[in-house]
Amino acid sequence: MTAAAILLAAGLGTRMRSRLPKALHPIAGRPMLNHLIAACEGVFDRLVVVVGPGMPALERAAAPHATVVQAERLGTGHAALQAAPLLDGFVGDVAVLYADNPLITPATLRRLRAARAEAGLALLAMRPGDPAKYGRVMQDARGDVTRIVEYADATEAERAVGLCNAGVLCAPAAELFRWLRGVRNDNKAGEYYLPDVVPLAVSEGRRVVAVEAPEAELRGINSRVELAAAEATVQAALRRAAMEGGATLVQPESVVFSHDTRLGQDVTVGPHVVFAPGVTVEDGAEIRAFSHLEGCVVRAGAVVGPYARLRPGTDVGPAAHVGNFVELKNVALGQGAKANHLTYLGDASVGAGTNVGAGTITCNYDGFSKHRTEIGEGVFVGSHTTLIAPIRLGDGSMTAAGSVLTRDVSADAMAFARARPAEKPGAAAVFRAARRKEKG
Amino acid sequence: MTAAAILLAAGLGTRMRSRLPKALHPIAGRPMLNHLIAACEGVFDRLVVVVGPGMPALERAAAPHATVVQAERLGTGHAALQAAPLLDGFVGDVAVLYADNPLITPATLRRLRAARAEAGLALLAMRPGDPAKYGRVMQDARGDVTRIVEYADATEAERAVGLCNAGVLCAPAAELFRWLRGVRNDNKAGEYYLPDVVPLAVSEGRRVVAVEAPEAELRGINSRVELAAAEATVQAALRRAAMEGGATLVQPESVVFSHDTRLGQDVTVGPHVVFAPGVTVEDGAEIRAFSHLEGCVVRAGAVVGPYARLRPGTDVGPAAHVGNFVELKNVALGQGAKANHLTYLGDASVGAGTNVGAGTITCNYDGFSKHRTEIGEGVFVGSHTTLIAPIRLGDGSMTAAGSVLTRDVSADAMAFARARPAEKPGAAAVFRAARRKEKG
Amino acid sequence: MTAAAILLAAGLGTRMRSRLPKALHPIAGRPMLNHLIAACEGVFDRLVVVVGPGMPALERAAAPHATVVQAERLGTGHAALQAAPLLDGFVGDVAVLYADNPLITPATLRRLRAARAEAGLALLAMRPGDPAKYGRVMQDARGDVTRIVEYADATEAERAVGLCNAGVLCAPAAELFRWLRGVRNDNKAGEYYLPDVVPLAVSEGRRVVAVEAPEAELRGINSRVELAAAEATVQAALRRAAMEGGATLVQPESVVFSHDTRLGQDVTVGPHVVFAPGVTVEDGAEIRAFSHLEGCVVRAGAVVGPYARLRPGTDVGPAAHVGNFVELKNVALGQGAKANHLTYLGDASVGAGTNVGAGTITCNYDGFSKHRTEIGEGVFVGSHTTLIAPIRLGDGSMTAAGSVLTRDVSADAMAFARARPAEKPGAAAVFRAARRKEKG
Repeated sequence: MTAAAILLAAGLGTRMRSRLPKALHPIAGRPMLNHLIAACEGVFDRLVVVVGPGMPALERAAAPHATVVQAERLGTGHAALQAAPLLDGFVGDVAVLYADNPLITPATLRRLRAARAEAGLALLAMRPGDPAKYGRVMQDARGDVTRIVEYADATEAERAVGLCNAGVLCAPAAELFRWLRGVRNDNKAGEYYLPDVVPLAVSEGRRVVAVEAPEAELRGINSRVELAAAEATVQAALRRAAMEGGATLVQPESVVFSHDTRLGQDVTVGPHVVFAPGVTVEDGAEIRAFSHLEGCVVRAGAVVGPYARLRPGTDVGPAAHVGNFVELKNVALGQGAKANHLTYLGDASVGAGTNVGAGTITCNYDGFSKHRTEIGEGVFVGSHTTLIAPIRLGDGSMTAAGSVLTRDVSADAMAFARARPAEKPGAAAVFRAARRKEKG
Repeated sequence: MTAAAILLAAGLGTRMRSRLPKALHPIAGRPMLNHLIAACEGVFDRLVVVVGPGMPALERAAAPHATVVQAERLGTGHAALQAAPLLDGFVGDVAVLYADNPLITPATLRRLRAARAEAGLALLAMRPGDPAKYGRVMQDARGDVTRIVEYADATEAERAVGLCNAGVLCAPAAELFRWLRGVRNDNKAGEYYLPDVVPLAVSEGRRVVAVEAPEAELRGINSRVELAAAEATVQAALRRAAMEGGATLVQPESVVFSHDTRLGQDVTVGPHVVFAPGVTVEDGAEIRAFSHLEGCVVRAGAVVGPYARLRPGTDVGPAAHVGNFVELKNVALGQGAKANHLTYLGDASVGAGTNVGAGTITCNYDGFSKHRTEIGEGVFVGSHTTLIAPIRLGDGSMTAAGSVLTRDVSADAMAFARARPAEKPGAAAVFRAARRKEKG
Repeated sequence: MTAAAILLAAGLGTRMRSRLPKALHPIAGRPMLNHLIAACEGVFDRLVVVVGPGMPALERAAAPHATVVQAERLGTGHAALQAAPLLDGFVGDVAVLYADNPLITPATLRRLRAARAEAGLALLAMRPGDPAKYGRVMQDARGDVTRIVEYADATEAERAVGLCNAGVLCAPAAELFRWLRGVRNDNKAGEYYLPDVVPLAVSEGRRVVAVEAPEAELRGINSRVELAAAEATVQAALRRAAMEGGATLVQPESVVFSHDTRLGQDVTVGPHVVFAPGVTVEDGAEIRAFSHLEGCVVRAGAVVGPYARLRPGTDVGPAAHVGNFVELKNVALGQGAKANHLTYLGDASVGAGTNVGAGTITCNYDGFSKHRTEIGEGVFVGSHTTLIAPIRLGDGSMTAAGSVLTRDVSADAMAFARARPAEKPGAAAVFRAARRKEKG
């Protein structure tokens, strides 16, 4: 049977104290909404994202999935109902999920779908360490759900029940939308609550079942403190997966991953390393302390850092070295090439076996456009070389240290551009004496 | 009623194994003594700090509060009594506090004062997780304190009492000093102990009450391990406050705050960031990984780091960018200005919209004095530019990459100072052949 | 009595998922095998390391201790027996240890030896938090070991025994090797197991005793997750020892030590500092945030960092300063000398009181050989100076900022090598207009 998911992402997230919509706050370098979308994509055939008014960034994040705007914030039931026009005539199950539950797993979603197939409505439940504020799930002797009791309305005996409603549910499309239309807002907040479909399902004699899942998946993220806690949970899982995959993390808790970081076997990651999104590190490469990588590939056996900053579009070749205080942006570094000290290379290619001396800088930007620097194979770029792009250094060429180069250099040629050194004997002593006198 | 506090800070802190007086060891970038002073300033009208002999740095840290030297170390009671001459004729309550209890809060101090108003003497007590070494507070049926039993003298039943004496107390000035003068030193150490005023108060029929406070506030800091534990407690509180105030901390436990760090709303702080004292970050600014900030302001929407080092006197303007391996010292960076790569700017102003190229260095120091660099608005400073201060670059001017500039540049002018590039065809190949032959 | 130890290091460590032999994976900068060797060297007179075939790196790591290759992997008993020819005629006790138990302490090994002196065979045992997978140690009423029951063969009652076999044992050489030769491989894996000597000892009427030691010492390291856990244990101990020795660690959990890091009294280590092997920091020095030190000495009162990278062979003199984004490799920095910003010095000496300006680079490598730079005392190296080695700057000399120097500079002389600055009025405005037009 096909199934659709409605993802509720309209929340402002007042407790986040942010101008960014709550669903766009990232975990492991990916917005919460996109975590949830990724979990849903393998389980549901169609996704509809409900956003609030004036949230174009959220609509872009949801693409290519359909979005619908909840113009007024009248509660979760009302929000889910906004998706009805987009699912008009849809035959199959519809689940309703929350963007602030981004850690829910595909396995849990599959269990929800499977449970729905056995009942009229299935909902997710959990047993939180501190259940105080949650609605309690009441079950009959067979374990079927009889009703949800909000905490405020619960008796002592009901509050003693540990099973809590997570708010996520799944039912056949036609019935779900019919029930949603039947939900009333005669409560203190005047809102239409999604869980209120449960008594409607029960009153129609439908069997309602609860699928229990870990609190860590279902706990809502409503503040930055909760966001940081979710980040910690995800990072711990990513670190463990990296180690189990054959990477050594010298101090795992100091390494920050993105959701999509890929590390090969026998990769060593030193302490204090940050992986922004889009990084692949191949087998046997070493990422040393204090490195920051984003949108790049590090090939087998390469050595990166300490203090290396690899920016998007960079490809560090096999057995290449990128060293201390070196920044590469959109650079292809050839096999065994080296750029080891205090260097900035941008929009450049560097051939195999080339050595880029300390303090080399590519001037790739003239204030208006970016230009390319192409350095051949087996080149020796002297220290403190300034390369004004567009420029090409031919294979086997050398540049004299301290040169500012504005023109291409032929293969095997030596390029230089520097003033002749001179010395004024005793002048330093004279200078010092004068300055000391000035300073009194 | 007015009140005074005597702060005991004469301890050498033998267990710290340090030449620095114990009270000067910092937590969150502020000496312990100054934490305690800050907590007291809103609660007490006068403060007197008791220091040891030969601790001028401690006297400076205590300023503008009065200090008195305890010439001989004869115990806490003796130390407190040294403050008597400075409080001669003082009418009001006097509390005695310890510099190695720096985490005590104003709220706790106010509760101590309020309790004193209801009794003849009030003292602070706690229920530590491991109470072993502390003196026990004995209470009668009404809860009034009858005596303090030192651990060594306590019976099994007395040791079973969980309420422990924290040593801090408060009483009317005249009585406190009279009791202090009555304390005897007939104990093994031959010292005058502050808590020995309690039985004197009781024997005079005064009601003595205990005010219970959390162990975290009252636990003494006597070793570097305990100092690190206190630092961790304070950092956890600062991180939580930052998040609750609307800042995102991607990996909170890797961010180190100072006691006075101020973060605006929607500030994002990446992993591995250090805030030394005196930093303000305005709304929406981003502080990226591996940045180190001290004594500076980052304006709204600015982007700092990764690997940015902001030193005192720096003001990063709205939407300005400070990038990788860039150090700014006493620099005003204008709105939207950029200094993104491998740059050192010191004692400089940079106008709005100006772009400072990679590898730019201001030579602000000639070995004797510091000189200023003034860069106008809309300037394009080419890469690897050396600016020998004092120097001014006019609005809209440009500098050619690799130039060493010693003179002012007019507005809209192009400045250059570099040698003409040249090339020796084949010379690199010749060099390589010769060197290979040499190396045999 | 003399004693020998056989260290079993032939394991491939399949669960490590590594091409590196398991015993070479490092903890606190030292391979596991070398941790175990260090623990054994003070306790045993001779060590024999059993390695697998094709592990030359392991043999090098074991030097100067004897190694023997276990050509076929036929079990721990078989591995231990490979050492027999090297201990032929050895009179004394022989202990058998595992390279994947590298955290075992000399104290525990001494207790093992002492216990052996009282019995025919002594073995190490532990009470793990989760004992599930271990063999249980069965004892009689006197506490003597009667047998080891493998978990798979154990009854419920036997499984309830908390004392588990750690696999390490000690017996007189002749008997141990005789028992080892008697061990059979009639088990599912067809392997010869070391613990199977225990029933042989018992059957000969020997008294067998168990020496209990902490799980943290005896827990095997079989995966990278377990390796990281062992690293964390070792780091916690190193941090605590550093603090107890009189160093302040602002954020201890962010500092990574090597096994041999030495910190003097009143050393302050900022957050996020990495000590690779071979570092000594003398009294009162300060290592600031984000610094990375390896194979170097920092003398009393020196200040290093933030963002300082000290590489092997570096000696930072008393009260010297190494600052932001500065890399030193094989450099002797004299008393009070300074290299504070964006500098690379390699193979150099810098005299007392010398100031190395921002952006200074020594060109120590010409693509073939390394050359030395010698900078005298009281020298002022201007910013952005390029020093092409071999080169000497005499005492009291100065270099003009932005100079590229290829020749020695005399004492007290001023050296310069730079082009004359010039200015084209209005040229920047013309350039901008042209580029804007181009870009349409």
